[in-house]
Amino acid sequence: MSLESVLTRIDQEMPRALERLMELLRIPSISTDPAFQGECQTAADWLVADLQSIGAKAEKRLTPGHPMVVAHFEGNGPHLLFYGHYDVQPVDPLELWDRDPFDPAIEDTPAGKVIRARGASDDKGQLMTFIEACRAWKAENGALPCRITVFLEGEEESGSPSLVPFMQENAEELTSDIALICDTGLFESAVPAITTMLRGLLAEDFTITGPSRDLHSGMYGGIAMNPIRILTRALADLHDETGAVTLPGFYDDVPELPDAVRAQWQGLNFDHAKYLGDVGLATPAGEQNRTPLEQIWSRPTCDVNGIWGGYTGDGFKTVLPSQASAKVSFRLVGQQDPDRIRAAFRTHLESYLPDGFSVAYRTEKGSPASQMSIDHPAFEKARQALSDEWPRAAAYVGCGGSIPIAGYFKEILGVDSMLIGFGRDDDQIHSPNEKYDLESFHKGTRSWARILDALTR
Amino acid sequence: MSLESVLTRIDQEMPRALERLMELLRIPSISTDPAFQGECQTAADWLVADLQSIGAKAEKRLTPGHPMVVAHFEGNGPHLLFYGHYDVQPVDPLELWDRDPFDPAIEDTPAGKVIRARGASDDKGQLMTFIEACRAWKAENGALPCRITVFLEGEEESGSPSLVPFMQENAEELTSDIALICDTGLFESAVPAITTMLRGLLAEDFTITGPSRDLHSGMYGGIAMNPIRILTRALADLHDETGAVTLPGFYDDVPELPDAVRAQWQGLNFDHAKYLGDVGLATPAGEQNRTPLEQIWSRPTCDVNGIWGGYTGDGFKTVLPSQASAKVSFRLVGQQDPDRIRAAFRTHLESYLPDGFSVAYRTEKGSPASQMSIDHPAFEKARQALSDEWPRAAAYVGCGGSIPIAGYFKEILGVDSMLIGFGRDDDQIHSPNEKYDLESFHKGTRSWARILDALTR
Repeated sequence: MSLESVLTRIDQEMPRALERLMELLRIPSISTDPAFQGECQTAADWLVADLQSIGAKAEKRLTPGHPMVVAHFEGNGPHLLFYGHYDVQPVDPLELWDRDPFDPAIEDTPAGKVIRARGASDDKGQLMTFIEACRAWKAENGALPCRITVFLEGEEESGSPSLVPFMQENAEELTSDIALICDTGLFESAVPAITTMLRGLLAEDFTITGPSRDLHSGMYGGIAMNPIRILTRALADLHDETGAVTLPGFYDDVPELPDAVRAQWQGLNFDHAKYLGDVGLATPAGEQNRTPLEQIWSRPTCDVNGIWGGYTGDGFKTVLPSQASAKVSFRLVGQQDPDRIRAAFRTHLESYLPDGFSVAYRTEKGSPASQMSIDHPAFEKARQALSDEWPRAAAYVGCGGSIPIAGYFKEILGVDSMLIGFGRDDDQIHSPNEKYDLESFHKGTRSWARILDALTR
Repeated sequence: MSLESVLTRIDQEMPRALERLMELLRIPSISTDPAFQGECQTAADWLVADLQSIGAKAEKRLTPGHPMVVAHFEGNGPHLLFYGHYDVQPVDPLELWDRDPFDPAIEDTPAGKVIRARGASDDKGQLMTFIEACRAWKAENGALPCRITVFLEGEEESGSPSLVPFMQENAEELTSDIALICDTGLFESAVPAITTMLRGLLAEDFTITGPSRDLHSGMYGGIAMNPIRILTRALADLHDETGAVTLPGFYDDVPELPDAVRAQWQGLNFDHAKYLGDVGLATPAGEQNRTPLEQIWSRPTCDVNGIWGGYTGDGFKTVLPSQASAKVSFRLVGQQDPDRIRAAFRTHLESYLPDGFSVAYRTEKGSPASQMSIDHPAFEKARQALSDEWPRAAAYVGCGGSIPIAGYFKEILGVDSMLIGFGRDDDQIHSPNEKYDLESFHKGTRSWARILDALTR
């Protein structure tokens, strides 16, 4: 077998690989809208047939929601589990699309050719990079280099309600040596990335009640305490003047970034002025002694995501409201325990309540951060393989958001994950005119061939 | 002439006076609802006819909105201007009424007989106390003791859009020696009151804009400043730990209460524990070194009347919003200048905005406080007259709310106002099951007879 011949075949097959991707993109598999339930089945069927066509034992597996696709390629050596999702976001507002979101096309842009369609980047184009790599490998060598299980979900854009039960019921079948998740991005156009840190999330949604009814501020303004005043004070005091979160013990389980990682991140030359300037901001907020990348990837944060109370309509009403509410979330890192942070937040909030005030919480589940152990030799092998394909060396990066699937693989299957993807910041996922660069599709497919080679050599 | 004979006639006429009030209460003169435009005309016509029946030169005067009623009684001595309003609040939620709001009835209650109907207290029952006093006086003495102008409005419950233009156009006709406004309450059941201090009002409605669009807190949480954080900090810092407003110069034009007034207010034995307990609160807020009455009547305050930003629907959205908004109002006293306070507030708010943030204001007009000069001899005469009628001596009191009419009389006509009324805290004005105590109606009518006597003796 030879990697070079696989890569050459990928290059030659690109026109047909794009045709297959177009077929999949034409299926409007919107998972949140019940009107598209049939299309989610169609997408799953299409993938089962495609995986069978390259020799996998593939099945559509029914759930109470949209079906899973599970395909096994027999083989020796390590057992790899690949994850992607075939469902897509809704397309509204449709009038902001320049073309039918389910009539994909290749377009020329100043930055190169792109595939324009809903799902092109998130996640159909990405998952097909892996399937195309397997197809080329099989064609060249008659078999894949190891045992591979492809596991595709149809509910990622609608909260994955069937995912955990399905994984629990099929844990033995899915358990593998390492998981490959293709739903993230490049660090930048020339720099591929393996995401090794995902922040956790804790959300609190609550209402403070003071007076038993709304009061007239002429009658009570002054002597009756206003719940909005309590709320603004309690929320304002969540951060100190340096931008740090003030909850006692908040930083206890936050590890310092290893020097090697910090040095590597600094080498990425992240353009934080552009990152902020693109959204109209001039100065970075947050902890003042941390670099922007460090803040987004490896530091915990707290944000008020919503606040409301009193009269919010047109004109004015001099009401002193009975209630004031907010939604507050924390992004967690390291070993921060969502339950401990929740308790610290509630202690903080309740310490501001005067006699007679109360607070009611609408509890949301919290999730801890995920930290991949890059000691597993697969990480360095994959990083080298990616570096061989792209203009610049691959980076281990963090991700400010929370991708639960890596946590589930660890928790339910005991399997570490490598998050490798080829999306770009301007892919407009979840927005009108989603696209995936042809280069991402092509080099992404080649990257997986290199990774399969590296992991099984 | 003899005051005693007028008071006796008032007592004897009470059944017929109540019948007349019932007639007026049966007219659903709701000023905010265009469906009741005809009924507002009917109420004005009824009042014109009733005032003509006791010898006034009365007219319905058309405006772009609901008509004014202006009636002149010729006479010697001082010229008194009496103000009331014949329009009433809407009645919804109708299902919370125990009877048809426009089918008035006398009801027995544990606290005595009451007249139950929309407008019984606000303000038809109150304005009829003055007209009934005039009727009895005229019947006993053949003429009123002085020149009196009765000025009744039909838009008080809908923002009085025609009031200022009408007063400006008819200033000469309405200018008098003193104005009597009957739209306030007793201090408590046994203690009548003359309201001599009305707080002013300044309202600010604004939106802070930070990032140019809503951001994902996973992508930007930490390094992008959240407008809600700026807003909560700026609002929380409006008060210090003692409850005082922190704007520089805020208290510069706030006079200290004269010792005599403070002593008199302390003598009222205001039950602030009950006042707060009735609305579910345990501890008074506000400036800690001020009595509750002093706070409500003679101290300026600041309250957030509304706040909103980010995601406020069900569930959670980890949005870092582009905007955050609030409505803030100040109750003003003494010589506090609304424009100066507005400027101080805006300087405060804008000092919290980071580079690239902006704020947009939806301006509301401010009004200064009204302080009646009780040096005018009419005040002490009226207070003595009220004290003669009621179980306990009348008090000069403040009012935490803002009643613009007194300010207009001063500003447009140069006339001082005495605010005297007989409503009670439990009258449920603006709410279902509004009532007016029969004692308020009876003793209120007798009070006006005594006041007319006192002012003209």
